[in-house]
Amino acid sequence: MSSQQRQACVNLQWSLALMDGLIAGGMRRLVISPGSRSTPLVLAAQRRPELELTAILDERSAAFFALGLARASDRPVGILCTSGSAPAHWLPAVIEASESEIPLILLSADRPPELRGWGANQTVDQNRLFGSYVREFHDPGPAEDAPAALKMMRALGLRAASMSLATPTGPVHLNLPFREPLVPDADCPGFALAEPETTAGPEAQQGPARRPCATQTLAGRGAPTPTDLPLGAGKGLICCGPGAWSAASADALWALAARLDVPVLCDPLSGLRFGPAGPGRITRYDGFLRNARIAAELRPDWVIRFGRAPVSKTLLGWLADIPTLLVDPGGRWSDPNHDVRWQLHSDAQTFCRSLLATDLGSAAAAAAHADWAPRWTRLEGQVDRLASQHLDEAPWCEAHIISDLLELLPADEGLLCANSMPIRQVDTWSGGRDKGLQVFGNRGASGIDGQTSTLAGLNAGGIPTTALLGDLSFLHDLSGLHLLRALERPCIVINNGGGRIFDYLPQHGLSGFEQLWRTPMAIALKRLAEPFGLEHRLAADRDALRKVMQEVLTTSGPGPSGCVIEVIVDAEVSRAAHRQFWHRLASSRLD
Amino acid sequence: MSSQQRQACVNLQWSLALMDGLIAGGMRRLVISPGSRSTPLVLAAQRRPELELTAILDERSAAFFALGLARASDRPVGILCTSGSAPAHWLPAVIEASESEIPLILLSADRPPELRGWGANQTVDQNRLFGSYVREFHDPGPAEDAPAALKMMRALGLRAASMSLATPTGPVHLNLPFREPLVPDADCPGFALAEPETTAGPEAQQGPARRPCATQTLAGRGAPTPTDLPLGAGKGLICCGPGAWSAASADALWALAARLDVPVLCDPLSGLRFGPAGPGRITRYDGFLRNARIAAELRPDWVIRFGRAPVSKTLLGWLADIPTLLVDPGGRWSDPNHDVRWQLHSDAQTFCRSLLATDLGSAAAAAAHADWAPRWTRLEGQVDRLASQHLDEAPWCEAHIISDLLELLPADEGLLCANSMPIRQVDTWSGGRDKGLQVFGNRGASGIDGQTSTLAGLNAGGIPTTALLGDLSFLHDLSGLHLLRALERPCIVINNGGGRIFDYLPQHGLSGFEQLWRTPMAIALKRLAEPFGLEHRLAADRDALRKVMQEVLTTSGPGPSGCVIEVIVDAEVSRAAHRQFWHRLASSRLD
Repeated sequence: MSSQQRQACVNLQWSLALMDGLIAGGMRRLVISPGSRSTPLVLAAQRRPELELTAILDERSAAFFALGLARASDRPVGILCTSGSAPAHWLPAVIEASESEIPLILLSADRPPELRGWGANQTVDQNRLFGSYVREFHDPGPAEDAPAALKMMRALGLRAASMSLATPTGPVHLNLPFREPLVPDADCPGFALAEPETTAGPEAQQGPARRPCATQTLAGRGAPTPTDLPLGAGKGLICCGPGAWSAASADALWALAARLDVPVLCDPLSGLRFGPAGPGRITRYDGFLRNARIAAELRPDWVIRFGRAPVSKTLLGWLADIPTLLVDPGGRWSDPNHDVRWQLHSDAQTFCRSLLATDLGSAAAAAAHADWAPRWTRLEGQVDRLASQHLDEAPWCEAHIISDLLELLPADEGLLCANSMPIRQVDTWSGGRDKGLQVFGNRGASGIDGQTSTLAGLNAGGIPTTALLGDLSFLHDLSGLHLLRALERPCIVINNGGGRIFDYLPQHGLSGFEQLWRTPMAIALKRLAEPFGLEHRLAADRDALRKVMQEVLTTSGPGPSGCVIEVIVDAEVSRAAHRQFWHRLASSRLD
Repeated sequence: MSSQQRQACVNLQWSLALMDGLIAGGMRRLVISPGSRSTPLVLAAQRRPELELTAILDERSAAFFALGLARASDRPVGILCTSGSAPAHWLPAVIEASESEIPLILLSADRPPELRGWGANQTVDQNRLFGSYVREFHDPGPAEDAPAALKMMRALGLRAASMSLATPTGPVHLNLPFREPLVPDADCPGFALAEPETTAGPEAQQGPARRPCATQTLAGRGAPTPTDLPLGAGKGLICCGPGAWSAASADALWALAARLDVPVLCDPLSGLRFGPAGPGRITRYDGFLRNARIAAELRPDWVIRFGRAPVSKTLLGWLADIPTLLVDPGGRWSDPNHDVRWQLHSDAQTFCRSLLATDLGSAAAAAAHADWAPRWTRLEGQVDRLASQHLDEAPWCEAHIISDLLELLPADEGLLCANSMPIRQVDTWSGGRDKGLQVFGNRGASGIDGQTSTLAGLNAGGIPTTALLGDLSFLHDLSGLHLLRALERPCIVINNGGGRIFDYLPQHGLSGFEQLWRTPMAIALKRLAEPFGLEHRLAADRDALRKVMQEVLTTSGPGPSGCVIEVIVDAEVSRAAHRQFWHRLASSRLD
């Protein structure tokens, strides 16, 4: 083998060792954007049947696709690209992954050190490109094939995948320089392909278990013990913000809520709003806390918060100045109101079980506040009824859309909600339901970005997921549209002519409002769907949308794939209906 | 005024002061992506008639648009967005701007310090988000309205715009936190709008002069003087890589080349290949240096290099191990071959004039190498003829496309070339021409990204610019398509079914090549043009393309605006024709 060809072969061995480590750490899928410098890594990935590869041209879309994939599969997902500005396109999704704790493995190919900083082509400083948004950064230098070097590389792969799942879960970046040549000769060991094609077998979908449950203990140096906390006295409540709950964790939570006899306020992204629940599940707080009298009367003495800050601004504002215990396994200090008095580094299940095993004297507390938890449940029912009444009386708007989706979406499927309006409207209008529903939202950074790619990733990750987007979030991620072709679930786009969240803010009515804030785009969605091979369905009233949804959802198998349902909503009518509902809430005789 | 409303008014005063400073520093255009937190800055910009505002939804596209705008107008251009992941989308364009030295002012709105790091919505760490890719970073903290604070803010605007034009030119980032409320009452000073609309008058297009010529001197501490350099002896050449030359600089260069009697190798992005030239302009080096005998015989003793590394890999490889003097006003060490022996921090004009004023004993050197410069010119002519012969004999391919474009594009207009193939093929096939032509390429990071948005920006910046892209680079920047609607010049897309540069690399023919490297997209360009309101023209042979180009270019005014010309090229035929030409060059009796 020539020394040139030896280099290419070393590159491959090095890359194979890395892939073996990543696979051992649980990675099963790798999303690739095309490039030359990344070739040794692509070759290695092709040669590992455990890995399923997906090629996506636009690196930004690839990263959001991987984000959805990782969220749905609860496994680390790799993304791979060439050198230069290519990995820079990952940044928005990396920020979201960091904030919402999604395990991504970022594999950026690079030029070797002797070319960096010397004006070589397609060479920029990729060192720590993602700053503090990644949990770890490594650059192991150019490939070597000494046994110790390959051992290190395998260990690095295992470490990267494992650290992406550590607490707090999040992205890990490996920057991987390669010297040319990049393609080895046929006699390079490991270069021969057993199978000519790159698709992974079905076993790749199963593989080793997903991430183990976190098993941290409650006690830590200096941490308060449960009896140090004021949980046995006064009126309390549990607030569950965005963050996934396992079934076992949820059981422990409902048991604790029953024991403490407190309401549990469930954010739409908490995973607790839909599916079986113990007593005390509250979903209508964004409604009844708009009634000033009720909001004042319900003021609690303490709050236990799980997960990130809730979507509802009404709730978050109401929680201000209430002593709060924050439970977070990763020690993230999520406290925009600055009310946290105690923070426990614990996963939710361990915390709930520890508290259940402790004598909190809650019987006395419950007796002292006999109408506390029941009152919350009563208000939940009253707002349920007001919402039903609104659905009967109001002109068609998002309230009906969300109510109908909650009725029609099959058990345990997914619903991706864009930021700005959809997630807020789901928060307001969903209520609870007994059938499970996994509500997803890129709520870490709450960007307008990456929605169609994330939707494709969620579906590719095995959870049939419908999206509810606005017209602008749909149009922000055009690169994801061609990925929707393969989906069995529709992408619902509420087309109300631009960024309507601004209609609810003080910017509404400013000079230049239409051009500089609401920014509607003159692109017809029907015509846009066509070149991407997507079916376009229009729904301009309640019956039409219900009918389309029923058709789309009942077609099993790879049916009418890639469907965009454009829902025409009159934003002015909708705004008036929302205001009317809030007025009704504010003025009604809730008790 | 309530204290709440006072805050909104302070936000506006603060923002007005910043805009005044930016305007004083030469900024005339601001590209805005919609958002709420950025409202005080938008309000301020609206109230300054010197500023022309453009709203673009996708921040990534907005940044590449601004990049093109700044390149064409040679002025600092601002980009503005809201907090969260929004500014992260700027990163690819910021890297390109940093590497290719384009003045961008990055204005990211942010939440105030008390919300950062506390889990508040749409709040991420934006501090030094662009790392070393920006020339300066400032976060002045929340708005204040004390006279000293407003004075500082005005100074900060002036400084940001000025520093973006300093040497080396590049992006400057201001992170700007605002406390709510964001919209002031009507009685806030400066809030009243003189004009209801936001468009700037024509005078905004003129304003103060563009950036002054750099006037650095040649001498520096420890810098060699011209007579220390080996320029008076042996065979030398001047290599001008990517980088703009003013007309005055070019005059000085041609005078120096004549004086030294050396050839000047002109990269397609040097600005020297097209337009009037002195003797010694060489454009066909990528051709004749492929002839091994000629390449060996032409070996020079020294090289003076200006600008970044040349596009031609043939030239760059051939230059290896030749003692090199690098002239760069910003002191950037562009030297991928590691051959630079001397580096001078000087602008090109100063350097050339200094050398012209020096006794270099060049008459003696020229006499000793009488056939040196003339031989280069002779070879240029010989390859010119071989290229003409190739055009006559070869089947239609990029050679014809580029030759025809060079003939048809009007004097002093622009041509944006995508990376990978188009810029390399222009390098090979353009030759020179007497009519000026401004060739643009995002060659700092040489990414596949942002091409359609950059094209729109170049045109908006006042240079009628045609683009020559491949199908993948066109499809990578879908968000830019709706910006093309307004253009008078076409976007030419060579559709050859994916990333054909890989056909020329060792990856060609690998298993999975089509899916993982070439990655053609199953999107019909004709159907894609439609929803964006673009005319689609097809050209499948030479006559058709010439005819379409003539039609499009001769329509004056806002004619058949927004035209995508899809050029169908058979990539296999093209590859064979290229190989045949290179074979002819390698085997021909060049002398």
